Amino acid sequence: MTLPRSTPPEPQPQLPETPHPPQRHPGGRRPGENRTREQILDAARECFAERGYDATSVRRIAETAGVDQALVHHFYGTKEKLFLNALEIPLRMPEALAEAAAGDRVGLGSRIVLAHLQVWEDASARPAMMTTLRSAATHRSAAAVLRDYATGTIREALGKVITGEDAELRIALIATTLIGLSLTRHLVRLDPVPEVSPEELAARLGPVIDLHLDPVTPAA
Amino acid sequence: MTLPRSTPPEPQPQLPETPHPPQRHPGGRRPGENRTREQILDAARECFAERGYDATSVRRIAETAGVDQALVHHFYGTKEKLFLNALEIPLRMPEALAEAAAGDRVGLGSRIVLAHLQVWEDASARPAMMTTLRSAATHRSAAAVLRDYATGTIREALGKVITGEDAELRIALIATTLIGLSLTRHLVRLDPVPEVSPEELAARLGPVIDLHLDPVTPAA
Repeated sequence: MTLPRSTPPEPQPQLPETPHPPQRHPGGRRPGENRTREQILDAARECFAERGYDATSVRRIAETAGVDQALVHHFYGTKEKLFLNALEIPLRMPEALAEAAAGDRVGLGSRIVLAHLQVWEDASARPAMMTTLRSAATHRSAAAVLRDYATGTIREALGKVITGEDAELRIALIATTLIGLSLTRHLVRLDPVPEVSPEELAARLGPVIDLHLDPVTPAA
Repeated sequence: MTLPRSTPPEPQPQLPETPHPPQRHPGGRRPGENRTREQILDAARECFAERGYDATSVRRIAETAGVDQALVHHFYGTKEKLFLNALEIPLRMPEALAEAAAGDRVGLGSRIVLAHLQVWEDASARPAMMTTLRSAATHRSAAAVLRDYATGTIREALGKVITGEDAELRIALIATTLIGLSLTRHLVRLDPVPEVSPEELAARLGPVIDLHLDPVTPAA
């Protein structure tokens, strides 16, 4: 298990309002640059969470981070690219699903569902995934992130198992199952889904994943 | 097939800014009252769509509708109740699912999925459902509407078929399947789900619904 790609959601002290140069420590250029990048990301997360994607300008993010707007563009390019970086998708999910897929074919579906649920149970990974899922319903960029992430993760974990002409559709239907489950368990909170144990949900939805593992017209 | 509960999404002319009494036609009280109610609903939809639930006040809705604020409370109670009314959930879905459930047990799951998809294909019903699903990811009230609507609709259609101690969970998992499908087909647009025909999706996901129709420990 690795840590999420981005920083943990540690509370940040109030950032200075006045602009200051990116390198505070002239001796080491890299650490100063990394600090500025993180500072911009934190400011972006704060602004996007508070006002949403559309109402947030790069200028406002730069002001919140206390850096020059040109520096934001230098490090992250467009507002959309900055948004994608700010979404903080954890790397833990691809690893967990790949581990679950590694074993025997029997019970594979249940292991996938359980691994998915366990990453969501993790307090350090959940907020980032909540933001992504929530934003995906309203923002095109976030929807694109979720699309790439969901299918990419499942393709990586199950690509050797899921073959055939309809492989992409079956991967998408597995993603649909897992995304739907996260939605009703964590966002919409459809009773009794949030109260059921991961193990029981894995037992119920494992066979659903198993259904999508095989082509509709089985070869052999 | 009945029409949606609320008015079709016909473009409304700009509403008057000045307040006016609810009854324009003193001869018939009911039609004037209905018109005012619709006027308030249209204003609410406009405001909620434009500024979101939190930033919209009852006062602003009353101003947009050109009526007294007290009248909004009189007709709809709280802002939340007005929001729920404004969501325009179509009555077509419960009817379509009930019709699909009426036939033989063989192929029941596929018929449910197909009926669900066909209501979503309908141009007059889709915007309302899109708004509900989209809002459910961010607004508690909308999530509550979706919860009641989804489980209520499925319980009504399949309540006789789905029995046993775990009936509520199985109903919720069928709702999860259908909500997840709508999310990846219409909102997140997870390739290739939006391009696949309703019939093919019904063939793929029908067996998933069928899995949830029976209790996990079958009672003979």
